[in-house]
Amino acid sequence: MKEYLKHDEWCIIEEGFNPDNHQSSESIFSLGNGKMGHRANFEETYSGPSLQGSYIAGIYYPDKTRVGWWKNGYPEYFAKVLNSPNWIGIDVQIDGHYLDLYTCKTENFTRTLNMKEGYLLREFTAILDDGKKIQVSAKRFVSMADTENGAIRYSVTPLNFDGKVAYTAYLDGDVENEDSNYDEKFWNIIDMEAHAGEAYLVTETKKIGFRVGFGMKISAKIGDSPLNISPEVLKKESWVANRIERTIKEGECFTIEKIAGVTSSLNYDKDKLLAATKQVTNSGFTKGYDALLSDHVKMWADKWVLSDIRIKGDVAAQQGIRFNIFHLNQTYTGEDERLNVGPKGFTGEKYGGSTYWDTEAYCVPFFIATAPANVTRNLLIYRYKHLENAIKNAEKLGFKNGAALYPMVTINGEECHNEWEITFEEIHRNGAIAFAIHNYIRHTNDEAYLAEYGLEVLMGISRFWSQRVTFSEERQKYVMLGVTGPNEYENNINNNWYTNKMAVWCLNYTVEALTKVKTMDAAKYASIIDKTSFDYDVEVKRWKEIAGNMYFPYNEKLQVFMQQDGFMDKEQILVKDLNPAERPINQYWSWDRILRSCYIKQADTLQGIYVFEEEYDLETIKRNFEFYEPRTVHESSLSPCVHTVLAAKIGDYKKAYEMYLRTSRLDIDDYNHEAHEGLHITSMAGTWMAIVEGFGGKRVHDGQLFLNPTIPQQWQEYSFKISFLGNDLEVVVNSKEIVIISHAQSNIELTVRDQKLVIEPGLSKSIPA
Amino acid sequence: MKEYLKHDEWCIIEEGFNPDNHQSSESIFSLGNGKMGHRANFEETYSGPSLQGSYIAGIYYPDKTRVGWWKNGYPEYFAKVLNSPNWIGIDVQIDGHYLDLYTCKTENFTRTLNMKEGYLLREFTAILDDGKKIQVSAKRFVSMADTENGAIRYSVTPLNFDGKVAYTAYLDGDVENEDSNYDEKFWNIIDMEAHAGEAYLVTETKKIGFRVGFGMKISAKIGDSPLNISPEVLKKESWVANRIERTIKEGECFTIEKIAGVTSSLNYDKDKLLAATKQVTNSGFTKGYDALLSDHVKMWADKWVLSDIRIKGDVAAQQGIRFNIFHLNQTYTGEDERLNVGPKGFTGEKYGGSTYWDTEAYCVPFFIATAPANVTRNLLIYRYKHLENAIKNAEKLGFKNGAALYPMVTINGEECHNEWEITFEEIHRNGAIAFAIHNYIRHTNDEAYLAEYGLEVLMGISRFWSQRVTFSEERQKYVMLGVTGPNEYENNINNNWYTNKMAVWCLNYTVEALTKVKTMDAAKYASIIDKTSFDYDVEVKRWKEIAGNMYFPYNEKLQVFMQQDGFMDKEQILVKDLNPAERPINQYWSWDRILRSCYIKQADTLQGIYVFEEEYDLETIKRNFEFYEPRTVHESSLSPCVHTVLAAKIGDYKKAYEMYLRTSRLDIDDYNHEAHEGLHITSMAGTWMAIVEGFGGKRVHDGQLFLNPTIPQQWQEYSFKISFLGNDLEVVVNSKEIVIISHAQSNIELTVRDQKLVIEPGLSKSIPA
Repeated sequence: MKEYLKHDEWCIIEEGFNPDNHQSSESIFSLGNGKMGHRANFEETYSGPSLQGSYIAGIYYPDKTRVGWWKNGYPEYFAKVLNSPNWIGIDVQIDGHYLDLYTCKTENFTRTLNMKEGYLLREFTAILDDGKKIQVSAKRFVSMADTENGAIRYSVTPLNFDGKVAYTAYLDGDVENEDSNYDEKFWNIIDMEAHAGEAYLVTETKKIGFRVGFGMKISAKIGDSPLNISPEVLKKESWVANRIERTIKEGECFTIEKIAGVTSSLNYDKDKLLAATKQVTNSGFTKGYDALLSDHVKMWADKWVLSDIRIKGDVAAQQGIRFNIFHLNQTYTGEDERLNVGPKGFTGEKYGGSTYWDTEAYCVPFFIATAPANVTRNLLIYRYKHLENAIKNAEKLGFKNGAALYPMVTINGEECHNEWEITFEEIHRNGAIAFAIHNYIRHTNDEAYLAEYGLEVLMGISRFWSQRVTFSEERQKYVMLGVTGPNEYENNINNNWYTNKMAVWCLNYTVEALTKVKTMDAAKYASIIDKTSFDYDVEVKRWKEIAGNMYFPYNEKLQVFMQQDGFMDKEQILVKDLNPAERPINQYWSWDRILRSCYIKQADTLQGIYVFEEEYDLETIKRNFEFYEPRTVHESSLSPCVHTVLAAKIGDYKKAYEMYLRTSRLDIDDYNHEAHEGLHITSMAGTWMAIVEGFGGKRVHDGQLFLNPTIPQQWQEYSFKISFLGNDLEVVVNSKEIVIISHAQSNIELTVRDQKLVIEPGLSKSIPA
Repeated sequence: MKEYLKHDEWCIIEEGFNPDNHQSSESIFSLGNGKMGHRANFEETYSGPSLQGSYIAGIYYPDKTRVGWWKNGYPEYFAKVLNSPNWIGIDVQIDGHYLDLYTCKTENFTRTLNMKEGYLLREFTAILDDGKKIQVSAKRFVSMADTENGAIRYSVTPLNFDGKVAYTAYLDGDVENEDSNYDEKFWNIIDMEAHAGEAYLVTETKKIGFRVGFGMKISAKIGDSPLNISPEVLKKESWVANRIERTIKEGECFTIEKIAGVTSSLNYDKDKLLAATKQVTNSGFTKGYDALLSDHVKMWADKWVLSDIRIKGDVAAQQGIRFNIFHLNQTYTGEDERLNVGPKGFTGEKYGGSTYWDTEAYCVPFFIATAPANVTRNLLIYRYKHLENAIKNAEKLGFKNGAALYPMVTINGEECHNEWEITFEEIHRNGAIAFAIHNYIRHTNDEAYLAEYGLEVLMGISRFWSQRVTFSEERQKYVMLGVTGPNEYENNINNNWYTNKMAVWCLNYTVEALTKVKTMDAAKYASIIDKTSFDYDVEVKRWKEIAGNMYFPYNEKLQVFMQQDGFMDKEQILVKDLNPAERPINQYWSWDRILRSCYIKQADTLQGIYVFEEEYDLETIKRNFEFYEPRTVHESSLSPCVHTVLAAKIGDYKKAYEMYLRTSRLDIDDYNHEAHEGLHITSMAGTWMAIVEGFGGKRVHDGQLFLNPTIPQQWQEYSFKISFLGNDLEVVVNSKEIVIISHAQSNIELTVRDQKLVIEPGLSKSIPA
């Protein structure tokens, strides 16, 4: 754990520069706009340890799978996000010497991530070798409004001398991925141009041949006076630049503005990318830094209106939750159904920038309540577009007749992962993908989605379950053999309760969905039946038979659902009695020891109860929670949030708050010493769930919105926003009252603490806390 | 399957040269003498596909572990046998053109492996590009008597011309391993010398620095007249040679003899290896080719006296079993306790030349009955010497107090394998290693072995089991969670019947062994107790409690031992009903599909019944055999032999013979299209077991030898040799009688078909068949 960042409600602030924290800060202060993003690398030369990272959403490289022992069914390739050419570079020379924060001294260094307005600001005094002092300010953003533009304003003021200051603003195509197998580079240069005031670089990824164009235009001023620049034009093999140099007097502020344009062949004709890049760059440049920033800030204001959570009386918690919401909104904006939420977003290479079930299980609950419906809709369409690949993936494993198994890890719909116990067996992902469709529809009433996209996905998934189960003659029940549940500390187990539960739900929901679509849109229904060669009588009969006759492990004595067959054969020593020196166990224990222990990485039985909470009475939830929580080591960042929600549900507020604390500042305080690799973007959505569904008690079922707010003792007041059936509302909770404020155009009906309320547009109601 | 080899009782014969079969032949015709060996590569240049392989026992390289996803506990390095410098090379030039069988035509080509005398002979007429014909004969062997010498006699006779024939006899240090991760080479050259008539090369392995010395001395003759040669001396970077050239008349036979000496730093002072190599080479050269060969043949004759199996009326079967016995004897001679039996012996690189449980489970039963007792004793001492590493290996996985887990795969006692489901979970290997001690002692009465070596190994293993079990509160029994049995088509299962059985046996046997050693040698006992800090009361009490209270899965309805928990939940479709197009399933099915199927790679429950057969009545054996056999796909070469033994036991002779056929010619007829990679050395011992324990019904228990011979209908007669308590005997079986012939110095007592016999030295007895 590192606590080097200042607590602040709206900003992340680093005071004083310490190279040891630099790589963590590069992750934490990352910027993105859904389309592109980058780590908080410095503009100027930095010779110290740094992870250079700049990423364009959807641009990946299919690298050869690396494996110790090959198993049938492994994918030949895995897609990984590429570190893309760098457009932020501005080298700074003072009287010929490069500014480099790793070698010079700094005073009054601050690095600020302004989350309200979405920009990154650095300010510091640098004391150079020869005693010269300069004041530096560097502010940049990746525009949320003009999503192909980024902008930097960089200024240097000599503090104790007159001298030459030179800026070399460049685009650099010579980059590599840290996770490259053999230090391979992944980009070819297609086009380069540099003229006075501007430069362009078109690059292409190896193998697939995605193209990305980068442009920059620069201007400069001294004080407020614009300069007529005539930069020196520089070119190297894969590098284009403009250099401007001026003699600056002590106290004068010399500023360069660099406006970048970034385009890709995802959105433009591959062969016309240079022209498109010029156009985009020019349009940003013409608009200018200030106007770009002001439109960008407006976009952020809109996002915060929908998604902000306010916490009074606990600045660390306030900062933590806003940091999480900020990064989720930077990572995914919902404008492009070809994109998704990578576990590290634009903050690092780890996990290859791929999509996991995290999206459906964690991010969808966030986006569906804090963003316009189309945002979640596009996340779902992403999977629809991968249905064909999911069917192929299932075929590779021996399934047939349109059965679909979505990949565990993917960028393009093909499987990227290669551990048999996960790749082939962690099939619960199919459940989360199906459930997200239901979750979307119950929040939006957009049943048309079923006909248009959802039903086909559900049918593919149900066909998979119906082939994946085995009828046990001995039990006279359907069983599900050889799976890994969300609790990855068990592999190749039989009858994972969560997986069986999800499968049964999927089968039932698909049958419902078939009926709904048939009623809603008979023609579309007929075309789907035809397209999928669906034999309703035979298939639905089997689905119903499985759903009605699935085996669920249960311990009669404890009256607790059993995570899997044989769980009670394990030694039942609780987590609290573990040797703290051996925690986290995944760093100290060999894999077999973890597997045969009762310790749970994330409790999947509780995850199932969380998903289907309305089916269980409070006593059942309590019994299961009290059985599994003490056995859970929470060594997945996705674990504690579900425990917060359930602990709050059963009134264990102390536990709820303890669990909440484990996630909200996970990256800011670098609990696991891994922030330098990138941030835990998807688990950030879990933090939001912990507050809104945990403390706020938000639930949606049977077409109704329910709230059951409580407030942690540590807080004076908190508020959150949610969207339900297209209506936006705000919930304010303090120790005295719960206030529901409508920001909607029509009446909002909801149940708060078992009390039915109707709130008229623009009004609010309160009930005592 | 390929059937290109001629059936013959004592020889493997290839007639006609086909490059497509060459790599298989390189394996099949391999030579070895326990200390070194090589594939049947050609002496002369060969430009076609070939796997060059020359190996020195005990010389390995610790290569970096390659893995997709690292798990705690994996070894950093794995040892692999190295392809060593090549000493067989003799390039042949005819009037300046290289002889190369890949580019020239051949007539009357034969390659013969004479298994009786242990040599490799090639004879052919080569027709060169320009129509010149030469007759070539090349005969070589690796001496069983002078184990550091090899010898080659190579001759060329021009058939239709007079011309220049040149031999370049060389030693080549520039070799590589095919399985090298990055085409790395593993040898450095330390010393090179070449003089007229001789050359030497001392090489060193990278990392560990093993040194190996190679020497050669040559002589030549025309017809029978020795030549006074003054060879040209040649040297390249890592290559030393002698070249002799003569003008040879049509019909004259020009012969070169190359005598090699091979030494290693395992046996000599590293810094004096060149001198030792010269000495060894010179000694071989002085003795000369013919004397070397004649001593070699004598050694082979001795081996055949002890181990031959004769089959009348079935040449293919006769050839098959002799091939298996021949290669086992080439691979391991039992003279050096630092060596062991690699699954490919000296015939290929695959599996890294390492030791598996195959040695104890399959090879020990062979050697203990067909070789002097010290041969098996040295195999056991090998493990004793690795005890310390086995304890370290267990510590790495969280065990303590001297618990020992032997590696799954090893050369030096350290684990080399890195699949968690095998490395960490296939712990039954510990059982086989313990059982081999018992097996050795019951065949030899060498109880002193227990005090000297065996007991410590048993204690380490029993300590492992006692920590590895879990007490299930629910079952009130000890259970063994998270294992992989010998049937590797199940991973991470609970209560593998075989593993539980072996564990209980080990615990009980260790308690017995403690008592035995205490009685036999109190001082040694005290020193072992002290050395191991053994707390007799506490530890033995726990061992007895576990042994007496272990859980064994059992199906009451079927009255069959269950391979593991939950086996009957699987879909029970028999192997005969599988789609033949999907066999072998490990080539067609994804891993998860195999895992959740009921199909068995090798039936471990039957393996347990095989090991402890005397505990079960015939009905029990029959029920279990008839349950498991139809579910076994025999996709391990170690599988069918156990089924032969049990099928014969229960009187299912048809099945016994069918299973026998699957192994005896596995490599000769290349059933699995993998002979080119090397031979299945360890499973060859299974073929021997199939005949002697299967058809011969040989058993040893309670200090007694039992035979219960039957004869397959397809055979007229067969005979085998066995050694029991130091007495050698021969068993001849035909349809009329069973004859037991004593080759012993004292009376032999045994039970044949329930009839007790005593046979006096040198005499025989027969009973009706």
